[in-house]
Amino acid sequence: MREIDLSKYQIRTDLVVDLIEENSSLEQKYNYKNVSVSNISLDKDSSLKLGKKPGDYTTIYFDDITDTTNYKNVLKILIDELKKMLKNSKITDDASCMIIGLGNEKSTADELGVSAAKNVTVTNHIYNLTGSLEKGYRITTCLIPGVMGTTGIETSDIISAVVKKVEPDFVLVIDALASDSIDRLLKTIQITNTGINPGSGIGNNRKEISSDVFNIPVIAIGVPTVVDATTIVSDTLNYMKKHFSYNIKNKDSVTDKLIPSSRINYLKNNNYTLSKEETSYFLGALGNLSNEEKKLLINDVLTPIGYNLVVTPKEIDFIVFKLTNLIGEAINKSIHNISTKNI
Amino acid sequence: MREIDLSKYQIRTDLVVDLIEENSSLEQKYNYKNVSVSNISLDKDSSLKLGKKPGDYTTIYFDDITDTTNYKNVLKILIDELKKMLKNSKITDDASCMIIGLGNEKSTADELGVSAAKNVTVTNHIYNLTGSLEKGYRITTCLIPGVMGTTGIETSDIISAVVKKVEPDFVLVIDALASDSIDRLLKTIQITNTGINPGSGIGNNRKEISSDVFNIPVIAIGVPTVVDATTIVSDTLNYMKKHFSYNIKNKDSVTDKLIPSSRINYLKNNNYTLSKEETSYFLGALGNLSNEEKKLLINDVLTPIGYNLVVTPKEIDFIVFKLTNLIGEAINKSIHNISTKNI
Amino acid sequence: MREIDLSKYQIRTDLVVDLIEENSSLEQKYNYKNVSVSNISLDKDSSLKLGKKPGDYTTIYFDDITDTTNYKNVLKILIDELKKMLKNSKITDDASCMIIGLGNEKSTADELGVSAAKNVTVTNHIYNLTGSLEKGYRITTCLIPGVMGTTGIETSDIISAVVKKVEPDFVLVIDALASDSIDRLLKTIQITNTGINPGSGIGNNRKEISSDVFNIPVIAIGVPTVVDATTIVSDTLNYMKKHFSYNIKNKDSVTDKLIPSSRINYLKNNNYTLSKEETSYFLGALGNLSNEEKKLLINDVLTPIGYNLVVTPKEIDFIVFKLTNLIGEAINKSIHNISTKNI
Amino acid sequence: MREIDLSKYQIRTDLVVDLIEENSSLEQKYNYKNVSVSNISLDKDSSLKLGKKPGDYTTIYFDDITDTTNYKNVLKILIDELKKMLKNSKITDDASCMIIGLGNEKSTADELGVSAAKNVTVTNHIYNLTGSLEKGYRITTCLIPGVMGTTGIETSDIISAVVKKVEPDFVLVIDALASDSIDRLLKTIQITNTGINPGSGIGNNRKEISSDVFNIPVIAIGVPTVVDATTIVSDTLNYMKKHFSYNIKNKDSVTDKLIPSSRINYLKNNNYTLSKEETSYFLGALGNLSNEEKKLLINDVLTPIGYNLVVTPKEIDFIVFKLTNLIGEAINKSIHNISTKNI
Repeated sequence: MREIDLSKYQIRTDLVVDLIEENSSLEQKYNYKNVSVSNISLDKDSSLKLGKKPGDYTTIYFDDITDTTNYKNVLKILIDELKKMLKNSKITDDASCMIIGLGNEKSTADELGVSAAKNVTVTNHIYNLTGSLEKGYRITTCLIPGVMGTTGIETSDIISAVVKKVEPDFVLVIDALASDSIDRLLKTIQITNTGINPGSGIGNNRKEISSDVFNIPVIAIGVPTVVDATTIVSDTLNYMKKHFSYNIKNKDSVTDKLIPSSRINYLKNNNYTLSKEETSYFLGALGNLSNEEKKLLINDVLTPIGYNLVVTPKEIDFIVFKLTNLIGEAINKSIHNISTKNI
Repeated sequence: MREIDLSKYQIRTDLVVDLIEENSSLEQKYNYKNVSVSNISLDKDSSLKLGKKPGDYTTIYFDDITDTTNYKNVLKILIDELKKMLKNSKITDDASCMIIGLGNEKSTADELGVSAAKNVTVTNHIYNLTGSLEKGYRITTCLIPGVMGTTGIETSDIISAVVKKVEPDFVLVIDALASDSIDRLLKTIQITNTGINPGSGIGNNRKEISSDVFNIPVIAIGVPTVVDATTIVSDTLNYMKKHFSYNIKNKDSVTDKLIPSSRINYLKNNNYTLSKEETSYFLGALGNLSNEEKKLLINDVLTPIGYNLVVTPKEIDFIVFKLTNLIGEAINKSIHNISTKNI
Repeated sequence: MREIDLSKYQIRTDLVVDLIEENSSLEQKYNYKNVSVSNISLDKDSSLKLGKKPGDYTTIYFDDITDTTNYKNVLKILIDELKKMLKNSKITDDASCMIIGLGNEKSTADELGVSAAKNVTVTNHIYNLTGSLEKGYRITTCLIPGVMGTTGIETSDIISAVVKKVEPDFVLVIDALASDSIDRLLKTIQITNTGINPGSGIGNNRKEISSDVFNIPVIAIGVPTVVDATTIVSDTLNYMKKHFSYNIKNKDSVTDKLIPSSRINYLKNNNYTLSKEETSYFLGALGNLSNEEKKLLINDVLTPIGYNLVVTPKEIDFIVFKLTNLIGEAINKSIHNISTKNI
Repeated sequence: MREIDLSKYQIRTDLVVDLIEENSSLEQKYNYKNVSVSNISLDKDSSLKLGKKPGDYTTIYFDDITDTTNYKNVLKILIDELKKMLKNSKITDDASCMIIGLGNEKSTADELGVSAAKNVTVTNHIYNLTGSLEKGYRITTCLIPGVMGTTGIETSDIISAVVKKVEPDFVLVIDALASDSIDRLLKTIQITNTGINPGSGIGNNRKEISSDVFNIPVIAIGVPTVVDATTIVSDTLNYMKKHFSYNIKNKDSVTDKLIPSSRINYLKNNNYTLSKEETSYFLGALGNLSNEEKKLLINDVLTPIGYNLVVTPKEIDFIVFKLTNLIGEAINKSIHNISTKNI
């Protein structure tokens, strides 16, 4: 079991926060009501170490977005963070923008980029016609390139051809992502000015979409909409350790028995851990594998038999509807200075 | 850990085959190409024992339905089995039929019943207008009652009101189900003349829809479209045992190392099991729990922290499209004697 | 030509304002910004005369609803007029309501009722569960009965069955209508407490949906979404007369030549008419037919050759989207005291 | 009235058959069951005369496409004619193809190109991956450029950028058209190798999409989905003349009174005409205008008051669904040698 060849399987993760240690100096955090935000800046050194590109990574964490109050709070933060990201990327108010919505609009789990992009107000044709725009508007175009399975063309080839023709000053690309953690699924928005790395999305955008390729700033907005069975199993085994530890520590406590074993109680509490022996007793050798080894093993079990399903919550339709409205509105209010075009 | 109160959590399962033992005399099986079929008939005794209603339960197993050959094979079997179920339920060729499509059409994981029902050809209004129907057609109506979250009305109340008014001779109801096994997800169709039990679907049909309530035969067609995280983890732990057993038994076999450890190799091979000691070594106490205990424990870990996600594969949109075409066509060819209305 | 049998063709019109003379004492009018409103109350006498049921008829006229300012103004008026209609119909604040969305959601010209109904917040299931509702909410259910072509069932039969079961205190039904005038197409909303007359909609609701049938108040909201070729031709011939009259009267006026011959100039100006002789010269015997005769004749020409097309403007998708949001929001703010459920 | 300046209004027509005289030597006709076909070849001379580009124009006429038999017959003809057009355009079996679906998929009247294109099987990415294709398949890509109102970019700019990058050997573009005749609306398919002329579609494709621009053959498939009120009125006035003539000629004929005045009777019968005096009596000066003058006048009446509506039949959703399946299947069977990808 220990002989598993670690090199054969590259751990897939799209969220840089998955790679950062707790309390790293690379990360700055803050909260706004029940929304929390992580700002990570990778210089060349730290970028090499983590295998991620140098640049800015912002992650916004939230709860159920179909709740009206959550929606408003996340909207406020997303507008703020997009404005910051534009500023950090040295994009001026008069720079022209191309919005790119990635993904397959026929797939609920993959349509997020397309639907969000369609909610952004475009202005380039009006500028070309009249020679000016109303105050507050930026010259903006929008491209929905489709996915390779339905176009037969590399998505990045379509984008680079149109970018070359239209010559926007920067690109803002939106995509659905895969997550390596249950608790981020549909509950985080990541913004980065490092582009989208190859193979990271859930769609078919296989070639890199980044400033290295297009020679203009590329800002990417991503939301994890799917998770694989490997991650679900691996995360659950970790939660199980916390669960056992909590139950052991509180087995004689009448008070604690009455407290629902909610997330607050132990999920983020580092005191709830098992010793190696306890782990062996409860979860055997499996329990003492590192996260990486555990994922490799589970993947080895599930993939050959066809059950490493990539899944999405059954409420995906309603959540994606809200998220695409939210992202569209936030982009309108940060690149332009207006409300969303959908009343 | 052993003190978990088993009574507090009722195992949810919609497929009667999940409750039947291997090689039970209640079950008859056959294969057609790569489609396999299970016919189960429960009399009063066996029905009490299993906690399922007496009647006929047919389950059709298949692989990827988006494959054209699979589609054709499953279609043939589904038509055959629907005709058998009509005959078993003593439904004559001139009995009038009401098709009922359950579920929420705005939710990809829950729209299966609605979309399939819409593919059935209705004829009642033509019969009322002309006094006759073309040869081969049965008097047929269709009702899409919606879900309680959007109607505010118990779904079974809408159905019973309309059934009372229209007075069909039998009802054929289609719904998306929850599954208790990864390998049946979107890969089985269940037909039964026992109706749909309360709370069994993934939607809001909470009151029973059955011949007990409507006093006419009720045939239900269901497809599992969602699975919860508990089931994914529990199934994976079982697969893991097979995996370890296989690897132990073949660790010196050069030949077997070259054979991909595919499903054929060990998933359905009862020789690949671990001893209690082996299980303890690899998976600890967790590994030696019964299936029921394992699910209870995993549920206890995931539910309080909000991570017992009910999920659906990311390809759900494409698979449901095929399945609803298939079911609509099969119903048309079994209740009528015609092809589907969608060319 | 004069021998055309007028009795054979019943003029189809859904808007009572089409039947009322200019400045009738039955009608009260007012304007709010560029929205105009007509309130008509028919007692038994006037109702017999016009062949319309006694009751209240409100028509709201507006311009392009995709314009944000227009949208807001019409919304305000629609909320006001719905509240008035509830009051006139003696519906109290605690009366329970069933919203009914008529039409075929697969047809853009006919989906208005269904889509608008889906934007209304339902509460009945919450009331049943908790025994109370938040302040401002009325007990509300929603029914989407479908159309006879897809259900095989008379729409009014489905409604009456469910109304009998659920026993709401009143019904609010929404439907797309046919118009007998170009200028009302997608630019009017009619509200009435007389129900929907048989055959008046563009869908398949053939039996009456009214308080006479259900024994509870029935309020109907309708929007004309289609017009037939007969109406287009007939209206154009009338506009042509105005056009010729205007041109004759202003043929030497340099000033008037510079004024664009816009609607304001002559469409509603009764001075621009032609004499019988002028009409004969320009438009022949056709021009001197009464409106009714003209429509009969055009219908006789177009219908047998299959060209009396029922049509809808090509922008229908965008306009219906706005109208269904508007109507949903207005109902929420008049039957409940809340905003729309779609943020 | 006679002083109307004919030069100010350019008659818009997309179908070259509208410009060809009856029995022109430029046109060859044939029938297959109830489908009729017109093949027109314009050389330089005739092209100058008609104001249309030199090249091949094929028009397929049919009745209600939602009828299964009609569907099959039109499909056979469309495959035949597409193959002929490829041959006429000197496109070999191994030439690579880019399918371009024009129009706005959110507008039912304008989505035809997009939806049809999505039904074509693309293969380029498989060829790039494996270096070969199954027998019968051509290297094919597909581009859905969107409309300027939602992209902010000239549609032809997107196309030319991607064509330049992907370098297909020919382009096949599909679009919804405007028609200048009621009887062609949704009942004709036009194929041409002359590209799409500026402003001819109903969407926003304003710059020419043709071999002149792209330097490769461009084959265009178009279906008229909309018609303006001017055309409806003008056509009706012409039908009216036929109607009067028919009635005058048959006023004493008992037999003819019994024959329904169907299309067959007189629409295409050149004997049914009115004299100038008869026309004056029935339709005044209006009746004696040329077709062109009549359209100019009606346009002058309707346009300034905002009522020259561009409309589409209310059944558009169902008809476009069938047409896009038909066109997709026909393209698959003519560019490839396969069935459609949608079973």
